[in-house]
Amino acid sequence: MKNLAILGATGSIGSTTLDLVGRFPERLRVTALAAGWNMKRLAALARRFKPSIVAAGNEEAGLELKELLRDFRGEILWGSAGLQAVATAPDTTLLVSALVGAVGVEPTLAALEMGMDVALANKEVLVVAGELVRNAIRRSGARCFPLDSEHNAIFQSLHGHRRVDVAKIILTASGGPFLKFSPEELRSVTREQALNHPIWKMGRKVTIDSSTLMNKGLEVIEAHWLFDMPAERIQVVIHPQSIVHSMVAYVDGSIIAQMGIPDMAIPISYVLGYPERLPLGHLAPLDLTKTDALHFAAPDLQRFPCLSLAYRALKAKGTAPAVLNAANEVVVEAFLDGKITYLDIPALVAAVLDDHVCLADPSLEQLLSADRWARARATSLIESGGMVPN
Amino acid sequence: MKNLAILGATGSIGSTTLDLVGRFPERLRVTALAAGWNMKRLAALARRFKPSIVAAGNEEAGLELKELLRDFRGEILWGSAGLQAVATAPDTTLLVSALVGAVGVEPTLAALEMGMDVALANKEVLVVAGELVRNAIRRSGARCFPLDSEHNAIFQSLHGHRRVDVAKIILTASGGPFLKFSPEELRSVTREQALNHPIWKMGRKVTIDSSTLMNKGLEVIEAHWLFDMPAERIQVVIHPQSIVHSMVAYVDGSIIAQMGIPDMAIPISYVLGYPERLPLGHLAPLDLTKTDALHFAAPDLQRFPCLSLAYRALKAKGTAPAVLNAANEVVVEAFLDGKITYLDIPALVAAVLDDHVCLADPSLEQLLSADRWARARATSLIESGGMVPN
Repeated sequence: MKNLAILGATGSIGSTTLDLVGRFPERLRVTALAAGWNMKRLAALARRFKPSIVAAGNEEAGLELKELLRDFRGEILWGSAGLQAVATAPDTTLLVSALVGAVGVEPTLAALEMGMDVALANKEVLVVAGELVRNAIRRSGARCFPLDSEHNAIFQSLHGHRRVDVAKIILTASGGPFLKFSPEELRSVTREQALNHPIWKMGRKVTIDSSTLMNKGLEVIEAHWLFDMPAERIQVVIHPQSIVHSMVAYVDGSIIAQMGIPDMAIPISYVLGYPERLPLGHLAPLDLTKTDALHFAAPDLQRFPCLSLAYRALKAKGTAPAVLNAANEVVVEAFLDGKITYLDIPALVAAVLDDHVCLADPSLEQLLSADRWARARATSLIESGGMVPN
Repeated sequence: MKNLAILGATGSIGSTTLDLVGRFPERLRVTALAAGWNMKRLAALARRFKPSIVAAGNEEAGLELKELLRDFRGEILWGSAGLQAVATAPDTTLLVSALVGAVGVEPTLAALEMGMDVALANKEVLVVAGELVRNAIRRSGARCFPLDSEHNAIFQSLHGHRRVDVAKIILTASGGPFLKFSPEELRSVTREQALNHPIWKMGRKVTIDSSTLMNKGLEVIEAHWLFDMPAERIQVVIHPQSIVHSMVAYVDGSIIAQMGIPDMAIPISYVLGYPERLPLGHLAPLDLTKTDALHFAAPDLQRFPCLSLAYRALKAKGTAPAVLNAANEVVVEAFLDGKITYLDIPALVAAVLDDHVCLADPSLEQLLSADRWARARATSLIESGGMVPN
């Protein structure tokens, strides 16, 4: 039996996780749930799964939740203390860390510090605070299991094999909707075009990141911390069919790969059941004889410079990845708001990185301060008119 | 340090094995070598690798070997006693069983009976005597490691994962040179066409088996015994690029696959190094961004009935697989000799299977007797003019 605390219970990862709890009640139970703002949904989940703690992102939402859950027997909390209480709830054996943004970093670190295993979907935890996560794990012996499909595929492809035999990690990327666009076509990409991802249905921000390959760049940074692999041994390969979710190449020339249909229930269930697999009979299994041929290609760093920016930030280490991530968040939002062009996205992120004085071995406070600096710098660059002539 | 005895030292598998011994002298050593007829080569290998026993297939070859190795300090033997002595040579930790044909069955069984780990390339050991092999392993605790690329890929894709979580095994097949031939075109296939395999360079008999899919059928039977998997959970998928060497599908919908360039050094080195991997820096690693797209398709059992015949023999068990294998050997030889047409191959094998009265739980003597019966029956059918009108 695994007892789950879930940060981000009402989001896509949280919902799939709770669907699996419902399907496997003899294996999975819920101890605590937190969500940012969707209190109606959180209240319904609390009634169904009966956690001992529920928490909202802020006081306003917390008071709404109290109102919705009048007869609830558990604790109702909010704010950073509430998230922390959920992350470290009594009797929990696995924290599902699935908030979006830097808000998840502190509670996840707190759980890891006390030796709690974490199932990680919250990108920022590793992108912003990867070194702190690694240090916490080394001190406490906690384990960090990746939930997203690429890192989960790598985790599965490493499982049982010796780490010293790994030659490199190969992250696959769908390449997004603009894979075959010319530099000229990229210049005039609209918000609507960028939001139309060919395979995965995701939120707006990550869909844009997927189209610029920044999403893959952030995954390279995550892979570095998750698997203790230097940047030059993490390769990105474009694979438009998204059937091979990622691979590991070994020193003998063998490549081990994990494949499957693009359904997040598979990687999530792997972590929830680990080391056992949960039988997902409700999903149609992958039938390779009925899929398109599998193509692989090297990414074009000229047309998709965000990927190079991520490698650059990873090699710089310290506060650079946090700055990359924060600047990217701000410029993507500006693009979605129609304030800048598509090609302004990499240009502005690069400009913020250029201006940043990287700090080595930063504390969490220094990382969050670098994050705030990058947001302010990106905002001021956007307000001064962007970087790329329209 | 692993000490190897090698049955079939001068063949393709034996040569690649000994090449690896030469590359990794600090990990691999040779205790005993046997070969059927190429005594010049065997003598050269004996001088280089200094085994304590060498053996030839028969007395004539053995006497030639004695003449070639006058100053040799080890034992020089021949015949079935010689093969048995090599298979069970003192200080051996791994027997590489790489003879061709039924001649390898007895010595390999003897080694397994005494608890020796076996690296298996000799198809007939499992196709003819799979049940005896399994029983020997259960009694002695010996392990059987597959050397050929498909079963080795399955072995790698199972490694570290729980066997109870396996949904099915997926064996890939290149499909051979006649993948897209119509039934009419198959009717007039010549020996030269059939010997032209698109990917792997192999012996003549296995190249024909590869073109009829009988080779894949025999591999289905091997997979059944190696991985204790019922016939209905072993699937064959056509994959003309031969990059994915085989796969395992799990109950959660994950498929784990092993890929690589088509070089037998990779699977052989995996077994020789197991559980460590040997760094094969001399091979160019697989670069998926430079290969053709990977295609997968269901096999056409109408045009390639040999695959169905193999499933039929596997389900019948007992002496049926031995009869399938022996009949196929005889009819393929007749095809290579120009005595029958390409479509006679499946027709004659089916006719022999039809005539066979299957015996359950056979002894080795009964299996070898069924093998002899099948050869005689196939020969008499060939002499009476084949089955299919020209």
